[in-house]
Amino acid sequence: MKLSIADIASLTNAKIIGDDPPKAGFITGIAKIEEAKEGELTFLYLPRYEKYFPSTKASAIFVKPAFKKTRKDITYFEVPDPNKSFFKIISAYFAPKFPLDGIDATSFVHPSATVGENTSLGKNVVISAGCKIGKNVKIFHNTVLLENVEVGNDSMLFQNVSVREECKIGKRVIIHCGTVIGSDGFGYTMENGAYVKIPQIGNVILEDDVELGSNVSVDRAAIGSTIIKRGTKIDNLVQIAHNVVIGEHTAVSGQTGFSGSAKVGDYCVFGGQIGVAGHIEITDNVMIAAQSGVSKSVTKPGTYFGAPLKEIKEAFRQEAHIRNLEDYAKRIKELENKVAELSEQIKNSLEQ
Amino acid sequence: MKLSIADIASLTNAKIIGDDPPKAGFITGIAKIEEAKEGELTFLYLPRYEKYFPSTKASAIFVKPAFKKTRKDITYFEVPDPNKSFFKIISAYFAPKFPLDGIDATSFVHPSATVGENTSLGKNVVISAGCKIGKNVKIFHNTVLLENVEVGNDSMLFQNVSVREECKIGKRVIIHCGTVIGSDGFGYTMENGAYVKIPQIGNVILEDDVELGSNVSVDRAAIGSTIIKRGTKIDNLVQIAHNVVIGEHTAVSGQTGFSGSAKVGDYCVFGGQIGVAGHIEITDNVMIAAQSGVSKSVTKPGTYFGAPLKEIKEAFRQEAHIRNLEDYAKRIKELENKVAELSEQIKNSLEQ
Amino acid sequence: MKLSIADIASLTNAKIIGDDPPKAGFITGIAKIEEAKEGELTFLYLPRYEKYFPSTKASAIFVKPAFKKTRKDITYFEVPDPNKSFFKIISAYFAPKFPLDGIDATSFVHPSATVGENTSLGKNVVISAGCKIGKNVKIFHNTVLLENVEVGNDSMLFQNVSVREECKIGKRVIIHCGTVIGSDGFGYTMENGAYVKIPQIGNVILEDDVELGSNVSVDRAAIGSTIIKRGTKIDNLVQIAHNVVIGEHTAVSGQTGFSGSAKVGDYCVFGGQIGVAGHIEITDNVMIAAQSGVSKSVTKPGTYFGAPLKEIKEAFRQEAHIRNLEDYAKRIKELENKVAELSEQIKNSLEQ
Repeated sequence: MKLSIADIASLTNAKIIGDDPPKAGFITGIAKIEEAKEGELTFLYLPRYEKYFPSTKASAIFVKPAFKKTRKDITYFEVPDPNKSFFKIISAYFAPKFPLDGIDATSFVHPSATVGENTSLGKNVVISAGCKIGKNVKIFHNTVLLENVEVGNDSMLFQNVSVREECKIGKRVIIHCGTVIGSDGFGYTMENGAYVKIPQIGNVILEDDVELGSNVSVDRAAIGSTIIKRGTKIDNLVQIAHNVVIGEHTAVSGQTGFSGSAKVGDYCVFGGQIGVAGHIEITDNVMIAAQSGVSKSVTKPGTYFGAPLKEIKEAFRQEAHIRNLEDYAKRIKELENKVAELSEQIKNSLEQ
Repeated sequence: MKLSIADIASLTNAKIIGDDPPKAGFITGIAKIEEAKEGELTFLYLPRYEKYFPSTKASAIFVKPAFKKTRKDITYFEVPDPNKSFFKIISAYFAPKFPLDGIDATSFVHPSATVGENTSLGKNVVISAGCKIGKNVKIFHNTVLLENVEVGNDSMLFQNVSVREECKIGKRVIIHCGTVIGSDGFGYTMENGAYVKIPQIGNVILEDDVELGSNVSVDRAAIGSTIIKRGTKIDNLVQIAHNVVIGEHTAVSGQTGFSGSAKVGDYCVFGGQIGVAGHIEITDNVMIAAQSGVSKSVTKPGTYFGAPLKEIKEAFRQEAHIRNLEDYAKRIKELENKVAELSEQIKNSLEQ
Repeated sequence: MKLSIADIASLTNAKIIGDDPPKAGFITGIAKIEEAKEGELTFLYLPRYEKYFPSTKASAIFVKPAFKKTRKDITYFEVPDPNKSFFKIISAYFAPKFPLDGIDATSFVHPSATVGENTSLGKNVVISAGCKIGKNVKIFHNTVLLENVEVGNDSMLFQNVSVREECKIGKRVIIHCGTVIGSDGFGYTMENGAYVKIPQIGNVILEDDVELGSNVSVDRAAIGSTIIKRGTKIDNLVQIAHNVVIGEHTAVSGQTGFSGSAKVGDYCVFGGQIGVAGHIEITDNVMIAAQSGVSKSVTKPGTYFGAPLKEIKEAFRQEAHIRNLEDYAKRIKELENKVAELSEQIKNSLEQ
């Protein structure tokens, strides 16, 4: 890989600064600032990584215009968002290819299923009766789709993914290893001292451009559909129960869980390890910090934290009060002493 | 699918109300109240869904006797538990069939293993030496059982399930995709600055009528058995460590975790994302709310919440106090001012 | 299996106490104290299990020298650490063999991949182009390695494991069922109202003697490597995000999660369900109790707990204050009454 300084600047609309560009005029690779070697391109975005700047071996670096360019042996690319420019270079030149060639002989496609052109199926893939797989789809080894599953064009399912019957997967969807789509929701009634299973006869719909991490569990609806809408991204080990609906362009971090029938709006952001109760609604543009517990509906856009959930400023204020409890306890004790003393003084003065 | 009004009423012991039953006298499907179309049957159970009643397109609905039947264009079925009656209709007429036909040619059954009659094995299933699989069992594609695993009659293991050697699975057990039974427990001793693995030589026993969700991890015992007893239901992504014993007819919601050797009684209910410490005991009939932390044994039936765990009323009272901290801090400050003022007054009066 | 009393004592440097050793002079098995049968060996370590001593059927037992040997029908082995001695016997005589014979005909090894001698591949295993698998490796059924994965000598990957391209696995590494190594990190930029994926072009490095539980998710680095260092042990359902580095000989309990670029030192111990924020650093020899939330770097060795994280003594002190809130509120109210009363008295006395 050889990228010219000019090509990099042109793709990212960067201003080139530096008396001494890389000798060959080429970049041979990319790396993090603390790991970059000679010839490599890097970037500086978060201030906490500036400590690596004096010693980085990188030959070129994306920086913000205001950055102090104290070294003369590095070529600077000035851009408003060094991280985004760096990612643009990755996408253009370093994106992985995910090779998979055609329909492997060990894969199974039921005669009633259809597979679009230029779609690849890895080893031991199972495509059951009635499935409809679009064009340019890649389904990796040992992934299993039960009956009547649909997968839209340009989607990618990595190895060991499980999709249960009747689930619908949109276009450009990415599903990572070990993830399960459409398992039965957790629904029972208690009859004569034993749980009786409620058949879960709905499905899961993943709209276009959804991405699901690894070992995610998305349950099928009891009836109707569990839905993850367009452009939403879900991290690893997330639990999505039956009949949950998650809006468009929402991001959910690892190990968060949504209980049954919870509804989430568009453009929300969830930190990790959050729990969301069943049957509640969260409006659009809500950000919730990690480890929160959401037990009631959130009707106002904003940033929230805590269990029970509060606006984040209130949560921090409450935390400060809790930190001060030792002080409060001491002051109550002092007040008690002081009041006892005053009481004594008054008693004495009245008796005089 | 065509269900007569009379059949529905008869199966659920419902009282039919309505001058104007569906024209054809038939129900053609079932749906949630907000999604039902003409000809479909629905139900109203939680008050929060009553808002959908005026506009539902459903032709028939299960309701409680007290419900105000303001619409004349719907057939009402009066029943004490509309949700249970609705589920009964699902079970009777709409339950999925899970087709799987015979022993697939790509599955492997070790010569020393036995497979009961009418049992189906999907593609690439692996049944290792010494396994005993009962009758009417369905094991879906790419599921792997190591040596000497037993599976009772009428059980169902979905795709990509992993069962390690020596584990025993009862009758009518359901295991969902991606779940792992019998992985090594997390046991080490530290010797000369490095962890040394303690061989985990026990197994897992799942008794009859247990159901495990997707991506659940149940570790084998270090020695003896990790046991999930009869009728207990476990949701997705739950962690069950080595030597845990969970009683009968207990329900555990998603992402909850039990540490090693924890013992749980019968008829308990766990919310999601609860953590249970090792070596503790929880008695029968204990309900624990989501996100709690259980670090000590629970010896009294009841409803609990919090970390540390408290009886739920006490937990709510404590939460109220925490909410009031701002007020308490203000009142302490006011008391201090007032006391200083009184002190000054007394001092002055005594000096007079 | 027949073990002589002398062999057990010799392997564990134990002192034999007991007038009445097992009649046959042999031990035929091992078991927990509450489950042991005649002829079996057990141990007593935690005081809470002493209640089973009077009734245990075990014929021999590891105990500490100070233990009161009130029963005459048991052979005692005195050792400083009864649990460790018991585990030594397990390792020597009862460790499982994990049979797997050669390269199964249904496994796939790409012509460009290499597989060391005495390595076994189970059914439907996929070893993609460029992989380098060492000697004495066992890879169980349906496990899939994408391109250029390396696995060191004597490692073991159980069934249904997924390893993505370019990941490097050291020697004597154990990976349990359902675990995913090298899935894409959770990285996007928001462009024109939609998330755009940042290609994740790094990899995962698992150093020698690492063990990962079941259903663990370890994401590949955005760029560079996600690293789990030598001797570190990770329990089930743990989330390890992109570019995380976990030091040597660290132990992480189930359902804990590390956000992107978090760095953890050597000899740390994490309880279960802990959340660690992104880009923070935790120094060596830090112990963190279960369910904590680590939002800032930890620069001092010690034991910590809580969310926000505190030294454990401070966390317990704070918890005590919270438990006392009811009392504090009552005392504030009493002070207010008392101060009002005093104020009245002073007012009256001044008016006199």
